[in-house]
Amino acid sequence: MKSLANPSTARLLITCPDKEGIVSAVSSFLYNHGANITALDQYTTAPEGGTYFMRLEFQTPHLDISRQVLAKTFGDTVATRYGMTWQLSFASDVKKMAILVSKYDHALLELLWRWSRGGLPCQISAVVSNHDDLKGAVEAFGVPFHVVKVTQENKVEAEAQIQALLQGNDLVVLARYMQILSADFVSQWQHKIINIHHSFLPAFVGANPYQQAYDKGVKLIGATAHYVTADLDQGPIIEQDVERVSHGDNVKTLRDLGEDVERNVLARAVRWHLEDRVIVYGNKTIVFN
Amino acid sequence: MKSLANPSTARLLITCPDKEGIVSAVSSFLYNHGANITALDQYTTAPEGGTYFMRLEFQTPHLDISRQVLAKTFGDTVATRYGMTWQLSFASDVKKMAILVSKYDHALLELLWRWSRGGLPCQISAVVSNHDDLKGAVEAFGVPFHVVKVTQENKVEAEAQIQALLQGNDLVVLARYMQILSADFVSQWQHKIINIHHSFLPAFVGANPYQQAYDKGVKLIGATAHYVTADLDQGPIIEQDVERVSHGDNVKTLRDLGEDVERNVLARAVRWHLEDRVIVYGNKTIVFN
Amino acid sequence: MKSLANPSTARLLITCPDKEGIVSAVSSFLYNHGANITALDQYTTAPEGGTYFMRLEFQTPHLDISRQVLAKTFGDTVATRYGMTWQLSFASDVKKMAILVSKYDHALLELLWRWSRGGLPCQISAVVSNHDDLKGAVEAFGVPFHVVKVTQENKVEAEAQIQALLQGNDLVVLARYMQILSADFVSQWQHKIINIHHSFLPAFVGANPYQQAYDKGVKLIGATAHYVTADLDQGPIIEQDVERVSHGDNVKTLRDLGEDVERNVLARAVRWHLEDRVIVYGNKTIVFN
Amino acid sequence: MKSLANPSTARLLITCPDKEGIVSAVSSFLYNHGANITALDQYTTAPEGGTYFMRLEFQTPHLDISRQVLAKTFGDTVATRYGMTWQLSFASDVKKMAILVSKYDHALLELLWRWSRGGLPCQISAVVSNHDDLKGAVEAFGVPFHVVKVTQENKVEAEAQIQALLQGNDLVVLARYMQILSADFVSQWQHKIINIHHSFLPAFVGANPYQQAYDKGVKLIGATAHYVTADLDQGPIIEQDVERVSHGDNVKTLRDLGEDVERNVLARAVRWHLEDRVIVYGNKTIVFN
Repeated sequence: MKSLANPSTARLLITCPDKEGIVSAVSSFLYNHGANITALDQYTTAPEGGTYFMRLEFQTPHLDISRQVLAKTFGDTVATRYGMTWQLSFASDVKKMAILVSKYDHALLELLWRWSRGGLPCQISAVVSNHDDLKGAVEAFGVPFHVVKVTQENKVEAEAQIQALLQGNDLVVLARYMQILSADFVSQWQHKIINIHHSFLPAFVGANPYQQAYDKGVKLIGATAHYVTADLDQGPIIEQDVERVSHGDNVKTLRDLGEDVERNVLARAVRWHLEDRVIVYGNKTIVFN
Repeated sequence: MKSLANPSTARLLITCPDKEGIVSAVSSFLYNHGANITALDQYTTAPEGGTYFMRLEFQTPHLDISRQVLAKTFGDTVATRYGMTWQLSFASDVKKMAILVSKYDHALLELLWRWSRGGLPCQISAVVSNHDDLKGAVEAFGVPFHVVKVTQENKVEAEAQIQALLQGNDLVVLARYMQILSADFVSQWQHKIINIHHSFLPAFVGANPYQQAYDKGVKLIGATAHYVTADLDQGPIIEQDVERVSHGDNVKTLRDLGEDVERNVLARAVRWHLEDRVIVYGNKTIVFN
Repeated sequence: MKSLANPSTARLLITCPDKEGIVSAVSSFLYNHGANITALDQYTTAPEGGTYFMRLEFQTPHLDISRQVLAKTFGDTVATRYGMTWQLSFASDVKKMAILVSKYDHALLELLWRWSRGGLPCQISAVVSNHDDLKGAVEAFGVPFHVVKVTQENKVEAEAQIQALLQGNDLVVLARYMQILSADFVSQWQHKIINIHHSFLPAFVGANPYQQAYDKGVKLIGATAHYVTADLDQGPIIEQDVERVSHGDNVKTLRDLGEDVERNVLARAVRWHLEDRVIVYGNKTIVFN
Repeated sequence: MKSLANPSTARLLITCPDKEGIVSAVSSFLYNHGANITALDQYTTAPEGGTYFMRLEFQTPHLDISRQVLAKTFGDTVATRYGMTWQLSFASDVKKMAILVSKYDHALLELLWRWSRGGLPCQISAVVSNHDDLKGAVEAFGVPFHVVKVTQENKVEAEAQIQALLQGNDLVVLARYMQILSADFVSQWQHKIINIHHSFLPAFVGANPYQQAYDKGVKLIGATAHYVTADLDQGPIIEQDVERVSHGDNVKTLRDLGEDVERNVLARAVRWHLEDRVIVYGNKTIVFN
């Protein structure tokens, strides 16, 4: 389940109304075209009349048609018959990812580090920040670093500038980016922006969650990776985790502990997205991991 | 730290303004009267000008004065000098505990089971319920079971009846008791009622937290044990824990998993209270465990 | 994934050499006979030339043939073609389970309790013990309790007596049964006896693992549920878990904490077995949960 | 408990036969010299006749004597009276740490990263490796990097060379250093070398623990940080942790997951050592954290 894909791996994500025969239809289609299914996960929201989700990994060395024709044929036949929303991707088409960050470096560095060790199957095309503090750390990884200052006055222009820098990416990660993106910006990247929120949502939405957690006296603190929607801190949750704390912790030690949770949670969510393991359904996610 | 006390164990809980010399004063007082300190925990909210908390366990076989005189002398000397709020208890004075419950049995049975195996140092004097469903299960443990039906009309009388049944107890546990206690009732048991809430507070306050968790699509569910205050679901948190869930869970499986978390969290909180490990400070708790 | 099955659920477990087309063949066979696949998990030990494992859950209300004919036809066609070892079971054929126990009650009571609340899909036919201590506790659940004393002298006769009591069961659980079963006994119940071992195997095999853990100064203790083979403590592991401990724990508190781990680990392993989620392969298990 | 110390913090570690009056004697001594106790932990191996351990943190701005005189006076009076083994250290005397490493970078980089962010209270004086692969990564943190090749022939000279490089350090960390240090080397750094072992000891001692874990089919993998003794993989355990795995993992994914556990476990153990939270007693540790 957790193995990184080799270059001949393809992945098919499917969402459709649940009906009998879907597994048979999809697997027979692939078999008939020389694809070897090496992973298959499915989920349905209800035994009768539910919505059906499927993820397949298959190997492509013995395909009897080109990838393009395979995709077109699947769309014209099986997908049409079952009313599927679907997405076919190939591990050899490496995804491009950009990262937005402000001053905190922990989440950013975790991503860069894992990526540099082969743990994130993507190309990191750029890091964009509203501060220049992390320029050296980023460039040490051989990744271009861009500064786009954002103020209340220049917000529209700044976002346009960021958009220009992000063109061509498949995924944008907010690794503790402290600016709120406009609804317009977000709408152009639907389910393609992942944010790390430094609390166990829906607890402690908004600013300064570690202070809120301290004031409340909780015994666990957490972090949440989610897709960004126009509704702040409310997008579909991909992954969460927690760490035990005690009365002996103060806001600073909560933050220190929390940053470790943040970087792990974000790294997992980003990897799952890159491996096509996440399907968004309404305001929730199906994660086949 | 986790050892159950033997009958000669005494415990002293202290809250006072932080000042130099407290440890010295308390430990010298005890030493001078023949007490042997076997556990000591302390915490201060700030290095300068904070509030100081201390928990001591000591052994009493060689006390040079009676327990009563020890307490009075401590109060007149050390405690007065440092402005302490304090509480001295003896493991041989076994605490009395009552349990309120409705129809769910998991939290109740966990407590009865652990208690019957010697895991909760208390006497369980009674279980009171607004339903009679659990009568057999409770009486199998040799514990008296009382039914007090509560309706919108009889609420005042019902609470009076419950109060009468609870007299003499040191602790009341709400093991999924589905009636809201009046502010008046609660005020008579300050920091002596422990409730188990079936969510990771402050997320999902109010009714049906598992449905809320399902609708939100969280990846962990939790439970919270807290002291009951007049402010519903807002009392000082004693203990919390979580369990990992996935998109594949429905409300029923969330509840099944959650019930396991609830019973463990409640059992820990109750044991810590019985072992005098919890000090309430404002709306938070210090837990020396 | 975690939903308990309804009575119309059937489950198919398959082990065979990995080849292209298996998913297609199995799912098409089921679809063609009116079965609706509601869960499907698969795993292969290697991308090329590996061993393939599959678990399907499907619903049977609209089968076009009887269950018997479905099984026979599957065996004669798909299973034969792919060289499958397979097992087809129906949730409505409730499995029968017996429990062997000595004096410790925690693992036994956890199973009885979960079973009484509908959490274990089986019929508990009998509890057999070499002591009579737990007779009352077992009979309170309406389960027959049998005592078979075992001594060095009567071991052969005692095992024969136990075998007679166990006839007709699908699963035998050793819930801290302190007698070692003979190789002959074990061989008659291959992959049908589950034991709970009170350590994180392979650490601390043999007697008194909590003492061993204490002497070693480990910072986590664990428990392991495994199938019983003739090789003591070496059978295929089904599930494990751990709990954090510290220098402050002694052998007794390690045991208290460990018993909580044991009962949870055993309950999970037993449920997975009853839901046909476990396939044994060599000395390891595939667990589709 | 978890707060990093400020420069005026001092720490006292004590081991002695348990007797009444120790807390009183130590705390009164400190109070009388103007020290303010801000943390105090204690543990005794037995209620009667045990060995007693204590850790104090106190603040030194108002000491009435110099640090040197404080230490000497304590040694001459309280420590002598109670037969204490003790150690007094000052947070302002920053400890010096060196790291030995081979080719794996994850544990090393975690330490460098946390250190560079202020998370490890020490000076990292040098990294020594038997390979030059990590030279660039280390020097990017401004830390000197030395290569000492070790072969079967030059082992004695190589160790002498390493010893020379390590002189003056308070702690040596083996961050996946793949050479076995000689007993003679180890004896010169008693309880001052911390190793990270990539398994949950005592399971899977020796080479290739991830392969061993895979072959055994365990459901959790772990890592262990321990002090190095002449007895390979058998030194006192400081910290351990585990991560859940499944049949779907292969040796490579076990290693990937395990490396995350390794770096966290090692970072915690090193921090605790640097904060004087660890006392070795026989082959076990007392960790006041």
